[in-house]
Order: sequence, then C-alpha cells, then structure tokens
Amino acid sequence: MKKTLIKNGIFISNNETKTTINGCMVIEGDRITYIGEQTPAPQDNYNEIIDGTNKLYMPGLVNTHGHAAMSLLRGYGDDLALQIWLEEKMWPMEAKFSSQDVKWGTLLSIVEMIKGGTTTIVDMYDHMNEVAMAIEQSGMRGCLTRGVIGLCPPEIQDAKLKEATEFARNWHGKADGRITTMMSPHAPYTCPPDYIERIVQVAHDLNLPIHTHMSETSREVQANVDQYGLRPVAHLEKLGVFSRPTLVAHGVHVTDEEIEILKQYDVRISHNPGSNLKLASGVARVPELLRAGVKVSLGTDGAASNNNLDMFEEMRLAALIHKGVSGNPVAIPAAEALLMGTKMGAESIWLQDVGQLLPGMKADFIALDIDQPHFLPKTDFVSHIVYSASAKDVVDVCVDGNWIVRKGECLTLDEEKIKREFEQSFDKLLG
Amino acid sequence: MKKTLIKNGIFISNNETKTTINGCMVIEGDRITYIGEQTPAPQDNYNEIIDGTNKLYMPGLVNTHGHAAMSLLRGYGDDLALQIWLEEKMWPMEAKFSSQDVKWGTLLSIVEMIKGGTTTIVDMYDHMNEVAMAIEQSGMRGCLTRGVIGLCPPEIQDAKLKEATEFARNWHGKADGRITTMMSPHAPYTCPPDYIERIVQVAHDLNLPIHTHMSETSREVQANVDQYGLRPVAHLEKLGVFSRPTLVAHGVHVTDEEIEILKQYDVRISHNPGSNLKLASGVARVPELLRAGVKVSLGTDGAASNNNLDMFEEMRLAALIHKGVSGNPVAIPAAEALLMGTKMGAESIWLQDVGQLLPGMKADFIALDIDQPHFLPKTDFVSHIVYSASAKDVVDVCVDGNWIVRKGECLTLDEEKIKREFEQSFDKLLG
Repeated sequence: MKKTLIKNGIFISNNETKTTINGCMVIEGDRITYIGEQTPAPQDNYNEIIDGTNKLYMPGLVNTHGHAAMSLLRGYGDDLALQIWLEEKMWPMEAKFSSQDVKWGTLLSIVEMIKGGTTTIVDMYDHMNEVAMAIEQSGMRGCLTRGVIGLCPPEIQDAKLKEATEFARNWHGKADGRITTMMSPHAPYTCPPDYIERIVQVAHDLNLPIHTHMSETSREVQANVDQYGLRPVAHLEKLGVFSRPTLVAHGVHVTDEEIEILKQYDVRISHNPGSNLKLASGVARVPELLRAGVKVSLGTDGAASNNNLDMFEEMRLAALIHKGVSGNPVAIPAAEALLMGTKMGAESIWLQDVGQLLPGMKADFIALDIDQPHFLPKTDFVSHIVYSASAKDVVDVCVDGNWIVRKGECLTLDEEKIKREFEQSFDKLLG
Repeated sequence: MKKTLIKNGIFISNNETKTTINGCMVIEGDRITYIGEQTPAPQDNYNEIIDGTNKLYMPGLVNTHGHAAMSLLRGYGDDLALQIWLEEKMWPMEAKFSSQDVKWGTLLSIVEMIKGGTTTIVDMYDHMNEVAMAIEQSGMRGCLTRGVIGLCPPEIQDAKLKEATEFARNWHGKADGRITTMMSPHAPYTCPPDYIERIVQVAHDLNLPIHTHMSETSREVQANVDQYGLRPVAHLEKLGVFSRPTLVAHGVHVTDEEIEILKQYDVRISHNPGSNLKLASGVARVPELLRAGVKVSLGTDGAASNNNLDMFEEMRLAALIHKGVSGNPVAIPAAEALLMGTKMGAESIWLQDVGQLLPGMKADFIALDIDQPHFLPKTDFVSHIVYSASAKDVVDVCVDGNWIVRKGECLTLDEEKIKREFEQSFDKLLG
C-alpha cells in the first residue's frame, strides 16, 4: 500500500477542537492515517515525502448541486428575465444536447472543478451514463442522479423513470465507491404528484436518497399553493419524499414552519448563492436554517447561472451576503462557510468519511499556494480561505488517496482535447 | 518613440458602438494609436510585435476607494461586530503604524492589485508620501489623498491639514502625470463642520477634487441627523463640499431626494460591495443611482474589510447582489458592471483618457489568459469577464505605455522582498 508523508505544511483539519495544524499528514492507500505537529518516526518507509512549505492543505470542496454539462451554455443569454432565459435560450439548446455534448460539457466542467479544488460533486442531468463515466475517469467523487421531468405523456414518464432507475442501480458504489446515486424528481412544479410518488417508491426499493429542486423562486411557491393548496415543503412531505433521506437544492423561499418540518425530517439544503443572485431568485434564509439545525451545504448550480464553478466563491458569497442583507456582521462567520463548503457538504450526501483531515478519513484534500500577497499576513487561514482565496490558488488535488491534479495540471484528463471537443460540440449546437 | 503591435487578440474596447473587436492594437509611447480588425500596414517599424492568440485584452481596472496599507490587517479580527472590530482591532493597530509599515503594507497591496489587473487606484490614508513613492515606483496610476480625521485638538487639526495640503500640492501631476491628488475630510462623523469647510477652502485654492466617506451605515446617517439636524448629503452640501468635484465612498444609505442632489452636483459614488456586505453596512441603491444618471464606480476598500483586492470580484458582486436583492434579473447587466470597473471608474476621478481601448487613449490595459475552461464557450466575453474571471486570470499589465506585469510577474517591484518586509512589519506590530 502506497504511503505518503506531507511535512512542513499548514493543515485546516475541520476538527472542532483544533482546526489549524502546523505539521504533517500521512496518507496510506485511500485514507489519512496521521495528522499532527510531530513527524511520526520512522521516516524511511514512505513511497513519497512531500515538502508542504508555503502550502495550505484543506479538505476538498464538496459541490452539492450542479448540472456539469451546462457549461455548454455559459454566457449564452445572460442578463435576461428568467422566463425568457429559460424558454428562449436554455430549453431549446438543451433539447438539442446529444450524449456526446453532455460528455464534453461535463468533462470541461470537471476540469474546471478539480483544478479549482472541488473533489466531490452532486450532478443531476440527462445522459447520466456519460456523466458517470467522466467522473470515473477523472478520479473525483460524484453523487449522481438522472433528474426526471414528468410533464410528458405516460409512456415517456415510464421510460424516463426506468432509465433513472437503471442508472441509479447500475452505478451506485462504482468507481471504487467514488460514485453514489440518488433518485430525482426534477421539481414539484415539473412532476405531477403521482409521478413523484412513483419515484419515491423506487428510492425505497433501491434504498437510495432523493434529490430535487425546491422553492427556488417565490413564483414557483405561489404556483404550488394555487395548484395543490400547499406550499412545496408540505406538498413534498405529503407525497412521502421526506420519508427518504433528502437533499433539496435552493430552498430560498421557506417559512419558519417549513424550516421546522425540514429540520424534523433532517432534509439537507444545498444553498446556491451565486445562482440565486444571478437569476434574481432571492436570498435564502441560511442563518435561520443553520440556527434551526438544518444541514446547509453549497452548490454552484450549472455554469449558465453562475457562471464559473469556483466553490471558494460560493463560500465567500455565503459568508458575505447574509451579513449584508441581515445587517448582522456575524451572521455566517468564515469558519461556518468553510464547513458548508466541505464537511457539511459531505454530510449532506451521506459521506461520513469525507470533509475533514483526520485519521480514518478518506484522503480527499487539496493544497493552496499561499506564497502570495492575498494570503498575508499569516493570521487566520480560515478567514483567508473564505474571504481571500479562489479556485486559481489550488495547486494539488488528491481524491481517495490518488493525485488527480498536481502543480495545477490535470493528471487524469486530457484538458487540451476536452477543450477542443467542447468547442466543437458548442459550434454544432449553434449551427 | 516605442511602437508595439498586438495582433490576433480579442479586445474589449468599451466603445459604445462596438465593444468586442477581434483584431489588433497599436501602442505608440504612452498612447493607443490604433485598434481594429485589420492589421495596419506596414509592419516593419515596430519595436515589438506580440501574438495575442488566446488572450483577452481589456482596459485596466480602476479601484476608486481603498486604503492599501490596511493589507497589514487582513484577517486580523474578522467576523466581529463593527464597533468591536473598529475599536478593539483596527484602530489600536493602525495607531501603531509607522511610515515604514505603511510603505510595506501599500507595496504588498500594489503587488496584489497590479498582478490582478488593477491599473489605477484611489488611496486615502496617512503617511501618504510613502504611498505616492510606492505608486511612482510601481508604474501604476494613483489618485491619492491624505484622509484627515478632525476629532482632535485645534493644533493637531492644523498640523494634519497642513500635511494633507502639502502632500496634495507636492504630488499632483507627478510620476509623468500618473499621480493626481485630492483633499479628504475622512467623513462627516469624524470631522467637525468648520474643519470640513477649511478643507474645502484648500481644495478651492489648489483647484483639487474632494474625496470622503459618506452614508456607509444607517447608524452614521442617524447620528448625523441627531447632531446636525441634517442627513449627510444635505450636511455636506451645506458645508460647500459639493462646490468642488467630489467622489464619495459608499453612499449606501441615500434617499431619493439625496440621489437627486448627488446628481445635481455630479457627485460620483464609489460603490464598495464586498466591504459593505462584510461589514453588514447594507446594500447600496446602485440601480437607482445609475438610473438617476449618477456616475457609480467600484472600490475594494481596505483588505481588512474585503479581504482580497480583486476588482473582478467587485464587478461580479455589483452585477449579482443587486439582481438578487431587487428580484430583477436585469438590474445591473454585465456590460454595466464592466463599465463601473473601468470607464466609469476613470471618469469618477476625472481621467478622461483612461478606461477605453481607443485611439488617443492612454495605453492602460491588461491581458487575460482565456485558454481556460471557465472562458468557454467563446460566446460573450463581457459576460465571461464579469461572471467568470478573476484576478488570477491576468497575465500582462500595461500602464501609460509601459509593461509593469508580464506573464504574471511584476517587472517594477521586488515581490519577494516586499513579502518579507511586510511580514516583518506585521510581526513588529503584533509584538
């Protein structure tokens, strides 16, 4: 089993009692086996000894909501009203996506994400076999789900559900366990109630969690009330969704009572601040959710509504906007934003051994080059990560004990080929 | 006179009729003399011909409010209530700053800013001779002012005003005209009215503009009403401040009536979204200000309240937060945010020949490496700059016709020495 020692580094462990450690870390196989100030003796049986001077090591970032292939639509129709953007720009182009388009769009996003320190993603899209193969090849971790929209004839509903079920069954636990799966009704407003109930039944049968969009816009909440007489939380509760472990994307417009129900069922929220701001969906009640004990993690959403996939920015936005909007300068401190981007992200998708640098945890971690002005003075590195760092500061990325990025270069994917194929896909879609 | 041709580039000119140009640009001495799709003949009399393939050229960023030396306080006491942060953290440390501390703090910030594409800054601080010398050495452009706080005995008021006056007189137009100066009462709440009037008189005598903080927090606005019976805008108007060309920092809490007065006097606002959010000051009424015809530019404020000095982030925040808070997805489009960070920034400090890439304009421009996933597909580069780019994408920086950064390296400053001296300054301040 390969054994690696990293010494002279600064480590942000996410350990509650002592987050910042100046010292060293040992990785054996896919696990961290030691982290501490002292170098463990003897030092003669390592396959590799890395000098971590001027590097900051931290858990890899966990992006809990996205549609990687939508990088194909980055900058395609920005700054439009939401309905025009969706109906005239996004949907017509997405309808043209082939599995090859999804492949190259997803791979381009994966290159951007892993080079930027994201080690785990949630991805909900179509042509998911391509997504799973891309994740497998990249070496990163993925919690994947075929999102189904049920506004279609029964036979198409059936076909989509069958496809989603097969995908979830076939890929769960694959790629050395780096891939897990979920079942996904796309949203309450895109799936009839009986279809949602059928999806929940499959999740029960396969013993899988559920991922869905919920309460992203106030308009959608009102439409739910108009159509079903219930706000989305009560509606999904009634349909049995929360009888399964559930991760909900957005949850922008929720009442105190709804927060209480989400807490009761331990429903996890993926907060997507960049996307919510850009699409003018509003500002989620994250401080209230966190205070109520709801697990809140962070997601970029697709690149069409963000427009980059930099999780440092999502942590920063989460730390900043809730202060500014609430008028409370301690609304979400840096340490909490960092947990949202790492440990709470992992917990939100039921990964118990990811998100901290501690013995026994998976070796999913990244290194930042801190020999740069914006990391000085060497005061509070948690603050520097959240308020000052960006994806471009990441130099090394390790997932499951394997290096997938080193010195800023992808080791598992051919970036140049991916960029070329991606551009060809986009040109074809336009043409 | 040195003559340079850049060919095969993509240029964001900020020209209203045609912003994006695929072609080339010619620089002669300190000016742009040509920009267009065709390469001007003949090509044999250039000192340098640059291949701009895979680069995006745009006007340098203009940061219209900051305190560069405050990088010494980056991460020192984050996530505290405003008064505790100021009274227990910022002020006691700042009181200890020597001119050498200001020198190294300012130089560190300048390294961060120029490498990140900022070519012009406004700086308001103490020990301004050090700041001016740092700007002169760096090759960047600076609009500088000694900010005076008047809550002190008359003889100290006199000494500060004398110092500010001498600084403004001595440095205006220096460094080949790259340095201009202003007069600055720090803020209405830190300067007695008669002291502000004396500063205004000096600005008249020297024919210089005024820069001040105004209406950053609602608490400060209320205190102004309580003490003087007027909100800050009327108060400053009454004291004659707006009889001089004026640039105001923040302007977060302004009424419709105040916006009208600001417009009437052509007062310019430096919007500092990152700082305003982090300090929980609120969200400025930028869409309303812009619609009323007020010039709004962007500033980072000091690194203690930001915490990096990345102007791409300020453009992105300006484009995002006003959408999210207003519920209007077209509140501030990308193109407007870009103008706020460049052309309107230059206009806000009365630089008429900076902020656009057009014949006759100063050669103040930057190049971004766009051969990266987050700049694909090649759809809308204005959108990519605002929603996707960051300081770390900048590779080349030219100011006044001189390269000050190339391939990501500072040519005018010794970055390694500056980092070392900065750390020593910080250690002494702590000790």
